[in-house]
Amino acid sequence: MASTFGTLFRVTTFGESHGVGVGVVIDGCPAGLPLSEADIQRELDRRRPGQSSLVSQRKEPDVAALLSGVDSGVTVGTPITIVVRNEDARPRDYDEFRQKYRPSHADYTYHEKYGVPPLSGGGRASARETLGRVAAGAVAAKLLSALFGVEVIAWVSQVYGIESEVDPLTLTRDKIEANPVRCPDPDAALQMIEAIEHARKEGDSLGGVVGCVAQHVPAGWGEPVFDKLEADLAKAALSIPACKGFEIGSGFAGTHLRGSEHNDPFYADDARRVYTSTNFSGGVQGGISNGMPILMRLAFKPTSTILKEQHTVTIHKENTTLKGKGRHDPCVLPRAVPVVEAMVNLVLADHALRQASTLTFSQQLGRVSSGG
Amino acid sequence: MASTFGTLFRVTTFGESHGVGVGVVIDGCPAGLPLSEADIQRELDRRRPGQSSLVSQRKEPDVAALLSGVDSGVTVGTPITIVVRNEDARPRDYDEFRQKYRPSHADYTYHEKYGVPPLSGGGRASARETLGRVAAGAVAAKLLSALFGVEVIAWVSQVYGIESEVDPLTLTRDKIEANPVRCPDPDAALQMIEAIEHARKEGDSLGGVVGCVAQHVPAGWGEPVFDKLEADLAKAALSIPACKGFEIGSGFAGTHLRGSEHNDPFYADDARRVYTSTNFSGGVQGGISNGMPILMRLAFKPTSTILKEQHTVTIHKENTTLKGKGRHDPCVLPRAVPVVEAMVNLVLADHALRQASTLTFSQQLGRVSSGG
Amino acid sequence: MASTFGTLFRVTTFGESHGVGVGVVIDGCPAGLPLSEADIQRELDRRRPGQSSLVSQRKEPDVAALLSGVDSGVTVGTPITIVVRNEDARPRDYDEFRQKYRPSHADYTYHEKYGVPPLSGGGRASARETLGRVAAGAVAAKLLSALFGVEVIAWVSQVYGIESEVDPLTLTRDKIEANPVRCPDPDAALQMIEAIEHARKEGDSLGGVVGCVAQHVPAGWGEPVFDKLEADLAKAALSIPACKGFEIGSGFAGTHLRGSEHNDPFYADDARRVYTSTNFSGGVQGGISNGMPILMRLAFKPTSTILKEQHTVTIHKENTTLKGKGRHDPCVLPRAVPVVEAMVNLVLADHALRQASTLTFSQQLGRVSSGG
Amino acid sequence: MASTFGTLFRVTTFGESHGVGVGVVIDGCPAGLPLSEADIQRELDRRRPGQSSLVSQRKEPDVAALLSGVDSGVTVGTPITIVVRNEDARPRDYDEFRQKYRPSHADYTYHEKYGVPPLSGGGRASARETLGRVAAGAVAAKLLSALFGVEVIAWVSQVYGIESEVDPLTLTRDKIEANPVRCPDPDAALQMIEAIEHARKEGDSLGGVVGCVAQHVPAGWGEPVFDKLEADLAKAALSIPACKGFEIGSGFAGTHLRGSEHNDPFYADDARRVYTSTNFSGGVQGGISNGMPILMRLAFKPTSTILKEQHTVTIHKENTTLKGKGRHDPCVLPRAVPVVEAMVNLVLADHALRQASTLTFSQQLGRVSSGG
Repeated sequence: MASTFGTLFRVTTFGESHGVGVGVVIDGCPAGLPLSEADIQRELDRRRPGQSSLVSQRKEPDVAALLSGVDSGVTVGTPITIVVRNEDARPRDYDEFRQKYRPSHADYTYHEKYGVPPLSGGGRASARETLGRVAAGAVAAKLLSALFGVEVIAWVSQVYGIESEVDPLTLTRDKIEANPVRCPDPDAALQMIEAIEHARKEGDSLGGVVGCVAQHVPAGWGEPVFDKLEADLAKAALSIPACKGFEIGSGFAGTHLRGSEHNDPFYADDARRVYTSTNFSGGVQGGISNGMPILMRLAFKPTSTILKEQHTVTIHKENTTLKGKGRHDPCVLPRAVPVVEAMVNLVLADHALRQASTLTFSQQLGRVSSGG
Repeated sequence: MASTFGTLFRVTTFGESHGVGVGVVIDGCPAGLPLSEADIQRELDRRRPGQSSLVSQRKEPDVAALLSGVDSGVTVGTPITIVVRNEDARPRDYDEFRQKYRPSHADYTYHEKYGVPPLSGGGRASARETLGRVAAGAVAAKLLSALFGVEVIAWVSQVYGIESEVDPLTLTRDKIEANPVRCPDPDAALQMIEAIEHARKEGDSLGGVVGCVAQHVPAGWGEPVFDKLEADLAKAALSIPACKGFEIGSGFAGTHLRGSEHNDPFYADDARRVYTSTNFSGGVQGGISNGMPILMRLAFKPTSTILKEQHTVTIHKENTTLKGKGRHDPCVLPRAVPVVEAMVNLVLADHALRQASTLTFSQQLGRVSSGG
Repeated sequence: MASTFGTLFRVTTFGESHGVGVGVVIDGCPAGLPLSEADIQRELDRRRPGQSSLVSQRKEPDVAALLSGVDSGVTVGTPITIVVRNEDARPRDYDEFRQKYRPSHADYTYHEKYGVPPLSGGGRASARETLGRVAAGAVAAKLLSALFGVEVIAWVSQVYGIESEVDPLTLTRDKIEANPVRCPDPDAALQMIEAIEHARKEGDSLGGVVGCVAQHVPAGWGEPVFDKLEADLAKAALSIPACKGFEIGSGFAGTHLRGSEHNDPFYADDARRVYTSTNFSGGVQGGISNGMPILMRLAFKPTSTILKEQHTVTIHKENTTLKGKGRHDPCVLPRAVPVVEAMVNLVLADHALRQASTLTFSQQLGRVSSGG
Repeated sequence: MASTFGTLFRVTTFGESHGVGVGVVIDGCPAGLPLSEADIQRELDRRRPGQSSLVSQRKEPDVAALLSGVDSGVTVGTPITIVVRNEDARPRDYDEFRQKYRPSHADYTYHEKYGVPPLSGGGRASARETLGRVAAGAVAAKLLSALFGVEVIAWVSQVYGIESEVDPLTLTRDKIEANPVRCPDPDAALQMIEAIEHARKEGDSLGGVVGCVAQHVPAGWGEPVFDKLEADLAKAALSIPACKGFEIGSGFAGTHLRGSEHNDPFYADDARRVYTSTNFSGGVQGGISNGMPILMRLAFKPTSTILKEQHTVTIHKENTTLKGKGRHDPCVLPRAVPVVEAMVNLVLADHALRQASTLTFSQQLGRVSSGG
């Protein structure tokens, strides 16, 4: 298992759905950042189950306990550890699932890989694991904001066939948080809510698309040729449970344009700051940020947990059927929003740190060789 | 810069477009694999410029020289080094580009990051860097084939608005190599060729979609929660020049299905082998391969190099215009096919090695604890 | 800060001396290993302060809480998290030390590096951080024992000028634990205890040498050319607080021998098992274990905390003097023993996992190419 | 095999003793450093065989070819590749050794690990692999010198029983290069040369100790708790062929001092610069450089290749005898000197880059939070 993410800003998550608790260790966060449990709690509350009827009704207070890394309200350069206890685990709901693989869940593949029959609640494949990511993302976001004014905002862009109209560049978090589905287009939001409620009643589930924008990222972040900024963002995206697709800038739609339409012309203002007049690149060129907003879209499949009868096999590989039970998210999208933001913040914080050394020394060498 | 990819099967590429040469060091390849320069040359020839009028006319023989890692025709466990000399670099074609940033290229971002004005030919951001990837991918493919019968096949699925009809499961490499655009649907291929030729004449460029399937991957590969198989595949995809999107299984289209339609039912045959009756998961569940074919799609933007006048800025940040020159690919798709295959093979080889230790020891512990 | 150790068996420690708690996340432990809190507690108790008058009198029960990674008493392949709360932190003892750098402690260098004035109790540079290592080492030791019968034993070999006579190959843990100084030579142990008590009374401190042997390590562990087994062991050793030297096999003493005396002749028994008749190599040749016992020695400096007046500077860089206060170890050696064992176990577990994939595939390729 | 070293300044060596060539890829070197083949050649010449009768008589011009990473005489931030062809490989000298394991060489362990019978000349376990390290070290040294004035100097401190008297702080490279044994104490040097010549005539070999000092390293380099500066230096040391021990500062000798003698008192000068009045710490405290000279000693065993008859086993595990042949170093120490310097420079360059981001952001956060 690989539970660590990042090169210099390194995050290690731990914990299973129905174990004692879940959490995260963040190593590599610079010293001097004001940080409190409240900073983390705010983001955990956005991810928490039970916020509305659209999501899982598991009752988890999800209280963040900060075990290390902060002294007198400020980070000290040491690993930051955040632990949350599981309170409302109901292992008995899962008795049947320990004998039968739930279709499109990770039960079968975990069994094949680790030789362990399915754990209650999906164990580590449960979305509950993302709690540690959100906690760490809150730290990364605060760091990026303090140092660069970077702001990462995600929203629900599409649910099932319902598309929204959103301008990523004028978006505010308030508009997104204004409704439980986290779609800033109020008309679309209403339809989405209705569709999700309908799916819930039928014991079915829906997927959709999360949009995400990162503003004020300076030019120069990203490490070609393998740790390109969009490559690490894509990895971060596809590491989120239920995510099946990622695009940056024009993405798949851009394949329908010609180069003469798709190229982003550069222009400079009077202060010789450089911009592009279009942004099909999505803020990244050659794997490195170019100072324009970074625009992403992530596809999430319909939740695998449904309350309908399905064909499957037992852990002894005999054909059978299974009908879902337990609390579930009929649509994972609203709760995926803070997870997407967290992962993008983690990638950006890591690349901010990686760029620091490149920049510092190139500038020093420039001065050295120019005698400056 | 981050030029190394992989955890146990580790690949380091080097070289710039117009430097002395390009190549790769492969560390972690097991000993005992028969390997010759011809094995590598075969794949390099598929990636080579000048194969047809559809691609760049740069004349590069791209002859692979094997410097280390092989003794008497067999790998010995040590790093395998492959070097190819650049023969047809024409730095003078690029004089103007060293003064002006080419739109949607990496010139500006590299300058901002490294403080170095654009290198001739795009330096390391050139597609020429992918030669090392293809060489390494040839080694990974041979290893995967020998040990598991894994076969990775990519093809051009869409160019501009032209879509093909292809059944990934009955596809053969012969059908793909039957035409210069590498699309196994002959009707679509003809239209694609026409469209590309047309774009070339206009000095314009086209993008599209590459499909890819990996067959016979055993269940159990992938390391949740961050190095999930699809996460590493996504990273590999987006690290390829011009790639702007990645999806696995149902991808973005899957967001239009309900959970009851999208879940893949399991069934077992008489030998208790497990399959799914649909494959919306694309061969990966919970970040781990499930034994079904792995299905991917990658979006490639239209090539940034076009021969039309464009707005841009000089390296001193003054507004100007620029008109492309030099040899270029009006459509990168046909040459992207072997690069996509290479990256998928590299990810799979790495995860094959990572799974080996997990599996070996879990099985041994099982025997130990059961007294077996 | 870099708080993660290992490539496949990866350990991340966290926590400061006077914070909420300390602990460790272990990622990469294979599934199927029986593991309980008692397994870990046993080793923590060996490291605990207050065991005897020879060591620090800080009163810490050091109760291990297992937060994740184990289900029904067996590891499941997910990260194993162990947390211990700090109970007897006395920050006020350290008030003076937050204004003045303690000589040969890490106060000054941490301040220079992180910009944070010294934390109470040394923060993360405190020996308290090693608790997480010992907890993780207990897991590694259990894994190595179950799979290979590997046993790692360390002991106090020298304190100040007092040398012991010990045969590493017939050593048992009982003999080592028979006295509080953990020296299996009873006569030397008595002298060491006397010397340490004497140093304590004078407010002074003593250093010494810890010996360590790893038995039953199979041939083949270690990854040349940089992650050689002895290189990773050396790194592990020097990462322990107060360790200033490491040698393997003949070490520094071997420089006084000629090649003809120092080479270890090979011989084979009737079953064609290979041994060496001497073991100046210390069980490692060319960076890879050769099946013979691995023999190491680690030098530990006298504890930096002494209760005598010393010259130093304030955190504002003014000359001053300082006289130690608080609870301290007059000799770190007895408590270093379980830490050394832990680090050696961690290195071996990691290399056991790394070797698994090398071996598995080389053997498979051998069968493939020989048609077997 | 693990042929990559470093986190941000990453070095990958390749090549076997009797293959086509050897070399190195250096990734992560900042742009803007003037660099030529001559810079590298100078260091390769110091490592080259055949320099004097004291070392191997293999005739290798060792001409460095720079394949990538430099444009117009300056590094551009891309991987730097250096290749050297093998010219004087004499595989036939090694025929016997492909059938019998040479005692205390890596033949047996490589065979056990990789399943490949011994390669001619020791393959990758040959000291010839260190050529890539020395080439990379030359780049690291130039970088450290340009940015910080750091200078790393190693010398032969002891051969067999002959100890030298050397003051590391007034040492110059001229004094070391003044004699072929690279010992700056002329009297000791004469005795060492005599002893080595004597050993050569007898077909025997000698070991010894290399001393090393790094001057002008700023305070703040090193990443506790696992990548402490001395831990990475120890790993670097023990990764060098034939190295069996490492100590920093007082090392093993320091175990004979009391804390009150061993602690290094701090003092400040009028400019509030901080020093220690003794340097038993060897320039590193708590795993982080403190601005004082870094002092190290490395033990090298007597060369394993001797020309005397020895007991060993065949690759089929039958007892036999073997008598050395071929060109060899009767004492590896003089040629180890540039290798030790190279490894220390690599560790320091990596930690210089790692510290850059820590420092940059902590300072920025300090300004942010103080409103500065």
